[in-house]
Amino acid sequence: TDTAFTASRMGKIPMFDNRPIGLFDSGIGGLTVFKSLLHALPHESFVYLGDTARLPYGSKSPQTIERYVLQNIDFLIRKNVKAIVVACNSASTVLLGGTKSFAVPVYNVIEPGAATALKATSGKKIGVLGTKATISAKSYVRALHALDSSVQVFQQACPLLVPLVEEGWESDPITNLVVYRYVAPLIDAGVDTLIMGCTHYPALRTNLEKATAGRMTLVDSSEAIANLIAADIASGRFGASEMRSDLEIMTTDVSASFSEVAIRLMAPHVIPPLVEVDISPLAP
Amino acid sequence: TDTAFTASRMGKIPMFDNRPIGLFDSGIGGLTVFKSLLHALPHESFVYLGDTARLPYGSKSPQTIERYVLQNIDFLIRKNVKAIVVACNSASTVLLGGTKSFAVPVYNVIEPGAATALKATSGKKIGVLGTKATISAKSYVRALHALDSSVQVFQQACPLLVPLVEEGWESDPITNLVVYRYVAPLIDAGVDTLIMGCTHYPALRTNLEKATAGRMTLVDSSEAIANLIAADIASGRFGASEMRSDLEIMTTDVSASFSEVAIRLMAPHVIPPLVEVDISPLAP
Repeated sequence: TDTAFTASRMGKIPMFDNRPIGLFDSGIGGLTVFKSLLHALPHESFVYLGDTARLPYGSKSPQTIERYVLQNIDFLIRKNVKAIVVACNSASTVLLGGTKSFAVPVYNVIEPGAATALKATSGKKIGVLGTKATISAKSYVRALHALDSSVQVFQQACPLLVPLVEEGWESDPITNLVVYRYVAPLIDAGVDTLIMGCTHYPALRTNLEKATAGRMTLVDSSEAIANLIAADIASGRFGASEMRSDLEIMTTDVSASFSEVAIRLMAPHVIPPLVEVDISPLAP
Repeated sequence: TDTAFTASRMGKIPMFDNRPIGLFDSGIGGLTVFKSLLHALPHESFVYLGDTARLPYGSKSPQTIERYVLQNIDFLIRKNVKAIVVACNSASTVLLGGTKSFAVPVYNVIEPGAATALKATSGKKIGVLGTKATISAKSYVRALHALDSSVQVFQQACPLLVPLVEEGWESDPITNLVVYRYVAPLIDAGVDTLIMGCTHYPALRTNLEKATAGRMTLVDSSEAIANLIAADIASGRFGASEMRSDLEIMTTDVSASFSEVAIRLMAPHVIPPLVEVDISPLAP
């Protein structure tokens, strides 16, 4: 089943490849990436894994996150996917630099987001909002400086934004106050481009536009990933699907609130039925 | 080492028992219980386990929480404790009703909190603030109705309060707004006694007093547990310590933010050095 991938590396023209693209996140935030890919790649099938039994990753150590990430990738490869999108910034952090290799292409959300931000910035002052793990790992700082060492990066950890989205308070004035509290230092610093460095944050795009008075370009990594996948298909890295046949959402733990929030984040798409899966046989 | 416990059940006078009392929580919130027990039981030694690798429990299913709770209890028993306090409401939920038995006495936070609230209420209208898991499991509703079926209980899930405490925003006006948003329906319902049904919430006592204009009695379960343990020692259920010899905090994952928040929650106590432990060999 690796034929298409191998063929492309040998320079041959790839066949169609109807296997799905896999995505995973610690929970629900990656659904904003899922939604974006559904729009951008209308022929592709997708399977989404929400590792809800172990969420959130954002507050855990790099060693623990890495163990979870490798288990999730292994699980999706056994689900016969042709490529994997790590739809979670905290999880993407441990894959930076491309030192690990897998049986299928694995996309992180950080590097495409960083590249997009660099294209967008006029004054070379880029802001990054993220979870504690993403910020303390300096993931975007490293990815940005690997591409352009002259850019200035201003980071802000925002632990309240995920629970505000999950509470469904996007339209509540309290959310605007919290968002403003977090972006105020970045406004003062003269940031012109702002990376939404957590997959929950695109749900707060309107609040962020309001708080920054529309003066910052907001970067959503999922758009960059969709473009990258389309380019890799075009260049023959792996085959395209003939038509979408399957959408699946799996979680490692059942939770009533997951489907409730999922319905909101995925609207107007109808979410497929949730399937609980056990990936624990692989746990060390 | 079970002699003291066994002796008390046989009606004999127990010996001193210098083994520590164990506490555990999914993370850091249980430190408010730890602090309260340190004050109330000045001769006892304690070991605290924060299961930070798998936090938070509040958003997970009862089956998953139960598995974690049994593993933590097993780990603490192997650490040679003489009693265990489940310093987490979500974890306590799975132990309600006393259907499980262990080698040492195990205290949950819910039943003592419920009993205290019933003693305090004048109008038999009790409010409960908690995580999603505690509220959807109706833990306090069940514990209260088991004691008095005529009491009216009004529940409110408060997913933002834990991150607000961990952010250190107790004195921020935003926190007062959020707290008020959550308690307003309970004020309207005429609640006179309010259970702080999550171990983080005692850190917000001042905000809760402000939001309720001082008209509700606030119930902190950790005080009730300390009284219960003192009574059990007096009645010979297990032996008292001659003097405090040991305090230990163990976590299942290292995290810089844990010690930062721990220092704030435990002040003015100085926290002992954090030790990372692996309880995973027990995982099924």
